[in-house]
Amino acid sequence: MISLGKKALAAKDFLSTVTEEQKNKALLAIAAALRENSKTIVNENAKDLQNGREAGLNEGLLDRLMLDEGRINAIADGVESVAALPDPCGLTLDEVTRPNGLLIKKVSVPLGVIGIIYEARPNVTADAAVLCLKSGNAVILRGGKEAINSNIAIASVMRAAISECGFDENCIQLVTDTSRNSANEMMHLNGYLDCLIPRGGKGLIKAVVENSTVPVIETGSGNCHIYVDESADVDMAANIIFNAKTQRIGVCNACESLVIHSGIINEALPKIKAQLDTKNVEMRGDERAMLAADGVLPASEEDFETEYLDYKISVKTVDDLDEAIKHINRCSTKHSEAIITNNYKNAAEFLARIDSSSVYVNASTRFTDGGEFGLGAEIGISTQKLHARGPMGLRELTTTKYLIFGNGQIR
Amino acid sequence: MISLGKKALAAKDFLSTVTEEQKNKALLAIAAALRENSKTIVNENAKDLQNGREAGLNEGLLDRLMLDEGRINAIADGVESVAALPDPCGLTLDEVTRPNGLLIKKVSVPLGVIGIIYEARPNVTADAAVLCLKSGNAVILRGGKEAINSNIAIASVMRAAISECGFDENCIQLVTDTSRNSANEMMHLNGYLDCLIPRGGKGLIKAVVENSTVPVIETGSGNCHIYVDESADVDMAANIIFNAKTQRIGVCNACESLVIHSGIINEALPKIKAQLDTKNVEMRGDERAMLAADGVLPASEEDFETEYLDYKISVKTVDDLDEAIKHINRCSTKHSEAIITNNYKNAAEFLARIDSSSVYVNASTRFTDGGEFGLGAEIGISTQKLHARGPMGLRELTTTKYLIFGNGQIR
Repeated sequence: MISLGKKALAAKDFLSTVTEEQKNKALLAIAAALRENSKTIVNENAKDLQNGREAGLNEGLLDRLMLDEGRINAIADGVESVAALPDPCGLTLDEVTRPNGLLIKKVSVPLGVIGIIYEARPNVTADAAVLCLKSGNAVILRGGKEAINSNIAIASVMRAAISECGFDENCIQLVTDTSRNSANEMMHLNGYLDCLIPRGGKGLIKAVVENSTVPVIETGSGNCHIYVDESADVDMAANIIFNAKTQRIGVCNACESLVIHSGIINEALPKIKAQLDTKNVEMRGDERAMLAADGVLPASEEDFETEYLDYKISVKTVDDLDEAIKHINRCSTKHSEAIITNNYKNAAEFLARIDSSSVYVNASTRFTDGGEFGLGAEIGISTQKLHARGPMGLRELTTTKYLIFGNGQIR
Repeated sequence: MISLGKKALAAKDFLSTVTEEQKNKALLAIAAALRENSKTIVNENAKDLQNGREAGLNEGLLDRLMLDEGRINAIADGVESVAALPDPCGLTLDEVTRPNGLLIKKVSVPLGVIGIIYEARPNVTADAAVLCLKSGNAVILRGGKEAINSNIAIASVMRAAISECGFDENCIQLVTDTSRNSANEMMHLNGYLDCLIPRGGKGLIKAVVENSTVPVIETGSGNCHIYVDESADVDMAANIIFNAKTQRIGVCNACESLVIHSGIINEALPKIKAQLDTKNVEMRGDERAMLAADGVLPASEEDFETEYLDYKISVKTVDDLDEAIKHINRCSTKHSEAIITNNYKNAAEFLARIDSSSVYVNASTRFTDGGEFGLGAEIGISTQKLHARGPMGLRELTTTKYLIFGNGQIR
């Protein structure tokens, strides 16, 4: 692993002087090479699928693991769209000339070397490498053992493609040892890795956050709330809740909990529930919710802290906005929350006091996404507050550097 | 500690709605109260000094611990200057209206609750609290036991002052238990503290970085280099090195190591050394440095990795810019480095390839400082890459939040 680290440092130094044009040329070469070599990649992927079937992986996992020509073309399309995005590096973020004549510029620069630890999705191998390259970073990829043949094929295609463009092939490196040990070594590769990004399920992210001494960018879970204020448009509320709960079940920006004002519950909850019933969503609520609509099951305190990722929703009744805000700030994972209201003052107070990465008025929480926010690409959604918060695009893969131009100044 | 945490969460909620005007009023009230109560504070400080003398603290530590009317007035002046700075919160950093009509604003908001762990300097109690308050953060302060009486006096004066302005006094809290245990509890106060900033010596910072599960903003050490390029103006190089090495010895932006091109060493090193000799700076160099100037002692590999904080400097001879850059990137702590050159291309390459927070052309590394960079105030100098890099001002005590304004949008 140290040897990979040393090669990555050399690649980082190489990348510190490449131009936007050179990076985009390398990205387009990767896209072309993926298309050209799709048969080889599909063949290697077939070995992973065969091994996966023998190991008894479930259909969902096998589907995530599977690559065919169509999926490889989609990955290549994605690479081309990243190439078309603006370069996040070299931007002058601040500039000042001080009274002593020093010109001080704060510019965006690559983080340096990024480690990515992920699971059985071979598309991440290309997606993550390409976002790192576009932002000028060297990357060390460590995917799950289930996808190792696919990952080796994809990584070698990408390395050969950038090498032909005059790049150090070690700008992209793959860890081929997929033991737990290699992940653990990466978490302690201080001095080589500038940051580590885990991509995958809760267990993986927790393990990395708790064990890594390398700084981590955490992409977290979402126990997202929608609060139906007393003045809400009930039809709008029902539509938004239906969308946020059921449009896609297993995602971090899905709505998991409904908070509802006692003054509107009798009118609103039956309508909301009727719409959710069309998708058989199980509703678990407090006593007042159970009285307001038929078929609401009792909620425990644990329900209010659970990210179901399922056709289930909890309901909490409150008597005013203050109670709603306090409940949400206590139970949420600080991902995405929404208020449905026609009250201007309440909207403003909700926006100010809710301590989450993305706070909505009268819209579905499902929009918390790099693409929907117009960032162009997304490496994940951060629920931490340092460095990056909310959907992370290319810009979040950069840091800053002060460049100071003098002519002999001393202090 | 959990009880302090809970009070801080309530204070954070309170602070989410205060205006810039209210914050500045509270800051000016703190400044006035510190001046009014300076006698009380001096009396409490006298107890700390007495205890310190009995415990055998050295003169340097006693001096850092000491407060008199003059020093308290200087602290109050500092508070007033922070009040006069622009509010770092509520800035719209990005704004987009999406094709579906959603208005998405990215705004700066307080981090929330900040923990500060520091040592025996009672001025930090006021300085840190005031920077946190100005940036809308609740703060939990945990200073060293040597200053506990002074800290209690200062904190209670500040709490009373903001309380009279209608603020929750728990916006500022002091941990009065100064055992190692209380610091350890703070490092694991996840869910209450949004970040932890250690302020003090290397040992303190290392302990916090290695043990804290709360995200840390690291303020690090500086093994700063100055590279004298072949085309350097020798007099300018000697002046800058003299300034960067000797103007103040114990600071993180002082120059610790000189890297010099072999083509200029015979002309430049004797002049540089002659100037440093006026302050009896010990020079430890490689073989070529020992040949180029009289009185250079031999340097070990360890010297090149040492932050002396003393009247000592190491000298490394290189044959070209590439060797200089590789040596510096290997040995530096990524704080501040400078090139002295008249070569335009070399200056650009040094700026691009040196991986440090602040990179200079033809100026002293001593300028890496919030005040010198025009940030107005400084909470520390970050040598990490995530969140903040280089001198940190008020802006680095904020995070961002997406506010999304809809009228019923679903996905």
